[in-house]
Amino acid sequence: MNGELSELAIHTITTKPWSLRACVDAYAAAGVRGVTLWRYHFAETNPAEAGRMIRDAGMQCSGLARAGFFPAATAGARRLAIEDNLRAIDEAAACGAPVLVLVCGSLPGQPLSESRRQIAEGIAACLGHASAAGVNLAIEPLHPMYAGDRSAIVTMRQANDVCDLLGSPAGLGIAVDVYHVWWDPDLPEEIARAGSAGRLFAYHVCDWRIPTEDLLNDRGLMGEGCIDLRSIRTMMEHAGFHGFSEVEIFSDRRWKEPQQQWLDSVVTAWRQHCSPHLIP
Amino acid sequence: MNGELSELAIHTITTKPWSLRACVDAYAAAGVRGVTLWRYHFAETNPAEAGRMIRDAGMQCSGLARAGFFPAATAGARRLAIEDNLRAIDEAAACGAPVLVLVCGSLPGQPLSESRRQIAEGIAACLGHASAAGVNLAIEPLHPMYAGDRSAIVTMRQANDVCDLLGSPAGLGIAVDVYHVWWDPDLPEEIARAGSAGRLFAYHVCDWRIPTEDLLNDRGLMGEGCIDLRSIRTMMEHAGFHGFSEVEIFSDRRWKEPQQQWLDSVVTAWRQHCSPHLIP
Repeated sequence: MNGELSELAIHTITTKPWSLRACVDAYAAAGVRGVTLWRYHFAETNPAEAGRMIRDAGMQCSGLARAGFFPAATAGARRLAIEDNLRAIDEAAACGAPVLVLVCGSLPGQPLSESRRQIAEGIAACLGHASAAGVNLAIEPLHPMYAGDRSAIVTMRQANDVCDLLGSPAGLGIAVDVYHVWWDPDLPEEIARAGSAGRLFAYHVCDWRIPTEDLLNDRGLMGEGCIDLRSIRTMMEHAGFHGFSEVEIFSDRRWKEPQQQWLDSVVTAWRQHCSPHLIP
Repeated sequence: MNGELSELAIHTITTKPWSLRACVDAYAAAGVRGVTLWRYHFAETNPAEAGRMIRDAGMQCSGLARAGFFPAATAGARRLAIEDNLRAIDEAAACGAPVLVLVCGSLPGQPLSESRRQIAEGIAACLGHASAAGVNLAIEPLHPMYAGDRSAIVTMRQANDVCDLLGSPAGLGIAVDVYHVWWDPDLPEEIARAGSAGRLFAYHVCDWRIPTEDLLNDRGLMGEGCIDLRSIRTMMEHAGFHGFSEVEIFSDRRWKEPQQQWLDSVVTAWRQHCSPHLIP
């Protein structure tokens, strides 16, 4: 049973009503191995303490979510965004997160190509600091339904292109979230491309519900939707990724359930749909 | 003023609370030139009569929406889907619509590649009948947020690929709806590719609201969102398309307004954002 869960990580936002303390205690008791921290916890728990709490419970801090949001209307605002990213890098280092997830941003009304230029510029401005801090930066391509305001990077190909454009530095890679990329006909090739370049830094799982009733907070539990999780994990493995399958589910309906019951459902679904022995 | 509106068409679903009679009278009075009929009107008005009503009011029937939905779990169900498409082709011919719009379909849980195979098979089975009836079939690539249940064809490239796969017949082309394709980094190349192959059959306009509150019925009025309508229309023109800019807006909030007021807003927005003189 422990072997089965060896790749199970959970994003703390999955059980959003819980404090970090409650997350850590319940996750550890459930056999979870990795915890991806969300920055909102730092309002009550400082990063070093948060990381220690996770390790003291016998788990790893699998990542920090999230920074990015580089595009902005003025140079001053873009500078502020970069400063926030530098702070997030320090936080990731302090809590022992190997990876900082970047939701890259998009400025409504600005051409997506210009937003992508600002994203590349913003990431470039953070690379030195990230490298010195020992923190990897992971670009997370978002679903095209977020192109208007959350990410001008909406495909794996665009994420790979940004990495290439910046000279393919070792500390820059990609977080693959099935929710955002499952529909993409280029997914197999682009996961393979990212693998060859050694830039597959994280893998997030959930499912796409039919119908999806909210653009943000109606993600499905694994098995509850139409994403072929086994195929995508197999692509990741073939491309050389053997890390966590991190559960990241935003769901207004699930956040209303008793969270222990919800966590139990997450672990059960993970066993059924994400366990390593399912992968050929 | 008449010249300005020469490319204005409206999908009747844009004013969904209205009967076809009410649509035709109000559109004609507003200076609209083309009417894209929705099949739900045929519950009360037969196709020949619907087409005559539009022409008698001095407008053209710019298209018929919609058929498609080819993927299904059994051969029998796929045959039924094809039969519905053959009926829709007859309806398009009867109402004088030059184009039948295809929302191609997707079967939840079935690999998208298999759904695309079934789509190609379904379209192939309709081509002869469409050609004999003088009706063009237009594949409408839908936004990737509909990949699970409405269309396994989510990019212009996939739509072009299906046309190529079927031997690029003259009566098969693409309906470009800005709502579905505006985010696509390949859009300029793929519109040019479709233009070279003579398969740009229709162009639909609306806008992408931020935030979008519903996946289906929260489309924006032109100018209300982040889509660069002028750029996309310019791509279409450069690719040889000079037809209607058809307004197609599904909006629960707009359907609650007095529909004459809403129609006036549509025409005003069309003048501001879609008039031919705006295109260089």
